[in-house]
Amino acid sequence: MSGSSSSARRDLPLGVFDSGLGGLTVVRALREALPNESIVYLGDTARVPYGTKGAATVVRYALSCARHLVDRGVKALVVACNTVSATVAPERLRIELDIPVLGVVDPGARAAVAATRTGRIGILATAGTIASGAYPRAIAQLSTRAEVVGQAAPLLVPLAEEGWTTGEVPRLAVRRYIEPLALAQVDVIVLGCTHYPILRELIEGEVHRRIGPDVAIVDSARATAHEVKTFLETRDLARHGSGEMRSVHLLVTDVPGAFRETASRFLGDAVSEVEQVDL
Amino acid sequence: MSGSSSSARRDLPLGVFDSGLGGLTVVRALREALPNESIVYLGDTARVPYGTKGAATVVRYALSCARHLVDRGVKALVVACNTVSATVAPERLRIELDIPVLGVVDPGARAAVAATRTGRIGILATAGTIASGAYPRAIAQLSTRAEVVGQAAPLLVPLAEEGWTTGEVPRLAVRRYIEPLALAQVDVIVLGCTHYPILRELIEGEVHRRIGPDVAIVDSARATAHEVKTFLETRDLARHGSGEMRSVHLLVTDVPGAFRETASRFLGDAVSEVEQVDL
Repeated sequence: MSGSSSSARRDLPLGVFDSGLGGLTVVRALREALPNESIVYLGDTARVPYGTKGAATVVRYALSCARHLVDRGVKALVVACNTVSATVAPERLRIELDIPVLGVVDPGARAAVAATRTGRIGILATAGTIASGAYPRAIAQLSTRAEVVGQAAPLLVPLAEEGWTTGEVPRLAVRRYIEPLALAQVDVIVLGCTHYPILRELIEGEVHRRIGPDVAIVDSARATAHEVKTFLETRDLARHGSGEMRSVHLLVTDVPGAFRETASRFLGDAVSEVEQVDL
Repeated sequence: MSGSSSSARRDLPLGVFDSGLGGLTVVRALREALPNESIVYLGDTARVPYGTKGAATVVRYALSCARHLVDRGVKALVVACNTVSATVAPERLRIELDIPVLGVVDPGARAAVAATRTGRIGILATAGTIASGAYPRAIAQLSTRAEVVGQAAPLLVPLAEEGWTTGEVPRLAVRRYIEPLALAQVDVIVLGCTHYPILRELIEGEVHRRIGPDVAIVDSARATAHEVKTFLETRDLARHGSGEMRSVHLLVTDVPGAFRETASRFLGDAVSEVEQVDL
């Protein structure tokens, strides 16, 4: 417990993992909120998507990703995947790996409950996350009066991956997906998939046009980054500004070739090096 | 080699497999072309999609699907998956499993070469199939003068799975995907993904409007069914009309719950029973 060992721990990177590249929007939000932190990101691109797999398989995959990052030396883990966060309680990973673990569902749920005035909260997410009921469960633990309306939006992931973030195709798809949320008169909509921040501007525009200008959009990536910041600061785990450049190291489990362009779009920055690892 | 054993072999079902449910469009085409045949279909829904996986993984998965069907007793295998057909030569499965094997790429390529007058052939397929170069390779073996233009169309799979087969969203997406094929002045377009026949009518309409009424659409599912028919007839393996009902037996590797509705849409018929198997 010497000063130098806790300073060494502060200087360790954050470990972030996702089933694929969507979690890079969480990395982007983390870099904005925590400019001094280095990050090691693992995208399990060989086994993506987790959303169609059974719970036992998702637990096994998540543990192997988490262990790989812990073995590399990280000070905390961020599960930047709604499917994993909805299936494996962060608490379970924390106990198995003896390291702080934060997921994306709870921060999104907390931000939604904080933002709603009417108590009617809409969730846009993948079919798997909606079917898991993770958001309604997390919200129910925070507020007894909240009503949650979930809407699966399967086209938004391929639209984000294609880079079709403007124009009629994403606009009409979003319009169709938010219609049930408009009818339910929600006043908060959670982007419950790490791909969706890529389409945030368009979603926000359509929501304000159709439902009203006061509807709040909760981006679970940003909500998570803010909770990670608070977590690191209250535990004196935040890296001090040291003049040294913070780094982002990208790991994937499938051949990296095709991922560079998509990764750059999600990260909002050019991706130079991608390392392939075997899990 | 007695008459009764070859008649017993004729009465065995056809084995059809795919990474997911898209291959059910091939089953639909097989039922139309071969109304007397029984079919066992295996959709590897736990490990879908194969398109993002490395070649070694796809080979391993394909062999495990094929072996499962051979162990159940089938007279021939149809690989109703463009990714597998593009990665594992049907010949390799035939040698390893000692059973006739037909893929979807070669029949689609043959039908395209037969239909083209100008020699300019367009391919619509997933990013994985386009990147594999399987269609240009197969077409080059059939015709030295053909030019092939490939276009990845990643949104069409989720559109087909969502059942968004009419309206502005699929129309504008298809319009965008066929534009490069229009500029290349193709006179044949191959639907090189087993999901796409679900959108055939809409694709055909847009192609005729934008490129011209004489552009032929080659549906690799139908092309495959016709080759399977010829194959069974020339080898005296076709089941004779026996008054007994032919059956379609569906196997999946993930929890079957969510698949029934999509399966019915792809098969063009209500799906009553789905069996889950472990590979």
